Amino acid sequence: MGKNITYPYLFDLTEQIFLKIGCTPEHAKLATETLISADLRGIDSHGVARLSGYIRLWEAKRINAVPAIKLIHETPSTAVVDGDSGLGLVVGAYAMDVAIKKAEAVGTGWVSVCNSNHFGIAAHHAMKALERDMIGVVMTNASALVAPTFSKERMLGTNPICVAVPAGSEPPFVADLATTTAANGKLEILQRTGKDAPLGWIQDSMGLPVSDSHALKTGGALLPLGGDREHGSHKGYALGAIVDIFSGVLSGANFGPWVPPFPAYVPMPENQPGKGIGHFIGAMRIDAFRTAVAFKKDMDLWISRFRQAAPVNANIPVVIPGDPERLMSVKRMEEGIPLLPVVLEDLQSLADKFNIKF
Amino acid sequence: MGKNITYPYLFDLTEQIFLKIGCTPEHAKLATETLISADLRGIDSHGVARLSGYIRLWEAKRINAVPAIKLIHETPSTAVVDGDSGLGLVVGAYAMDVAIKKAEAVGTGWVSVCNSNHFGIAAHHAMKALERDMIGVVMTNASALVAPTFSKERMLGTNPICVAVPAGSEPPFVADLATTTAANGKLEILQRTGKDAPLGWIQDSMGLPVSDSHALKTGGALLPLGGDREHGSHKGYALGAIVDIFSGVLSGANFGPWVPPFPAYVPMPENQPGKGIGHFIGAMRIDAFRTAVAFKKDMDLWISRFRQAAPVNANIPVVIPGDPERLMSVKRMEEGIPLLPVVLEDLQSLADKFNIKF
Repeated sequence: MGKNITYPYLFDLTEQIFLKIGCTPEHAKLATETLISADLRGIDSHGVARLSGYIRLWEAKRINAVPAIKLIHETPSTAVVDGDSGLGLVVGAYAMDVAIKKAEAVGTGWVSVCNSNHFGIAAHHAMKALERDMIGVVMTNASALVAPTFSKERMLGTNPICVAVPAGSEPPFVADLATTTAANGKLEILQRTGKDAPLGWIQDSMGLPVSDSHALKTGGALLPLGGDREHGSHKGYALGAIVDIFSGVLSGANFGPWVPPFPAYVPMPENQPGKGIGHFIGAMRIDAFRTAVAFKKDMDLWISRFRQAAPVNANIPVVIPGDPERLMSVKRMEEGIPLLPVVLEDLQSLADKFNIKF
Repeated sequence: MGKNITYPYLFDLTEQIFLKIGCTPEHAKLATETLISADLRGIDSHGVARLSGYIRLWEAKRINAVPAIKLIHETPSTAVVDGDSGLGLVVGAYAMDVAIKKAEAVGTGWVSVCNSNHFGIAAHHAMKALERDMIGVVMTNASALVAPTFSKERMLGTNPICVAVPAGSEPPFVADLATTTAANGKLEILQRTGKDAPLGWIQDSMGLPVSDSHALKTGGALLPLGGDREHGSHKGYALGAIVDIFSGVLSGANFGPWVPPFPAYVPMPENQPGKGIGHFIGAMRIDAFRTAVAFKKDMDLWISRFRQAAPVNANIPVVIPGDPERLMSVKRMEEGIPLLPVVLEDLQSLADKFNIKF
């Protein structure tokens, strides 16, 4: 049986672990905040369930706990950030700060990041823009698990796109989506419970559609949003490719099949063309287009009108992107964060390793 | 039987028609170039097949042939353009020019456009950035034909996203995709040939998946990319929503169900919150991030590596976005543009109406 852990308790534990690997207090706090925002929002695959994975990457010297994050190129509205192999959780936050400063100065800021690692959930970084009355745009590439349309080879990561838009009296619009039919985390849930996946989520090593949720372990691949050509998988593939180019090619990071793997035991791809993982992070000041007041009034109208869109089933209303995760955050902040036994064991091992009471 | 018309002949005819409705020579040329770039690239639904539709909008006084296109707000990296009800074909081109100028000055330029009309294919506008070693990003909203996940109501247009990226020795990467499973033009082809649509493209007026390609005529709707919730349609819906917000809400255009319809006989939605149709058009200078030489070298590697991705079927290689349309352009420039009898009749009527020899 799992257990509910309060947010402050989980925060403290995670922060202590980041401090133990040598992060500065500032970075440990930032990394913790970013990582467990996923647990809070209900994206369990991207939160503390991954903490031991990050630590193994640090042990394998693929993550640098004390990075000298550098701005290596810039114009008034753009920058390239070199993450110095730091935690993406920290590098991503740094890049959004740069984007926001540029947006304050010239209306928008766009930062392409190289030499980084996994940055947690895109939404956490994108939502940083909201408090400044800005739109946040965040993407990242990731190690190859996805086969392009017509291919049986894993060439792209699940490459998410997040856009966060402020509203007035309505809560913000926050869309955060992997460019695949289903995120890998969704597949992992089916694997754990021994269930099949719907057709259109994955294919086997020959490129044939399968429902076996373990097909990735035998050379299969996730499928781009759309699932197959007839249902628009070439569009999901194109979106994943755009994320890869903006994050990897524009920054000098790795891209396509060369992106570093998350599991520390998987060897690095050979002949890597770039440095680490890439992100693309942007901020647009609302009042670089219209007054924030006028925009928010229309955004409230957008949201309320879409909430009222005629439902197919009277009991299932249309969802505004970001609503489920926001409601989950409120719930989990109150009731605590439910962790599976396997995650609790993982945290216990980490606590033991670093002599922390858990 | 249809007929092949040469590009110069079609250009001349179309340009004359735009001149007859009062466009300036400059605008007539620009509008023609934009419109028939669709025919050249094989996007037959968006080319001269729509010319009579544009003319009917002009007759209904919904399109202003002599617009005073204005920049109504700007910062160093952003602008809002008011298209003065002009042809989107012209307004879109104007907005990309503004975006390119801003990118030259501060690295990137982002233009949200209100009070416009349909702008042809997004790719034509986005590709304008390529010749300046810039990435082009183009979106537009459109009249509501698409039901959000869980809804039976048409709330969004097919809202395309186009990204054009320059390469070195390889041709550019150009992804231009409706955020629906299938673009409306694809459905029209099935309607003309009396064929069924695959499940996942459309639903009926009750929100049930159907294969009847005419279901839109009886209150049905197109489906967001993904098709249904289990296959990620909430992501297609979110992408369409992002396009709508960037194009409509950010500019002060209409959005959601209030976007003006293309057929001139369809009444305007009531209580419109904004002006006309909206676009979002951006340009990013490559060397605002890396030298163009280094970027293009990596982009060539990206493209050649993806071309070589292991195919499922040895005879069907992986497609690089933009390749099919580029090859089609070359072919049609040589062999002429095949027009269906119904399109030829349409053009003949226009020629007769304006006393032009055809």
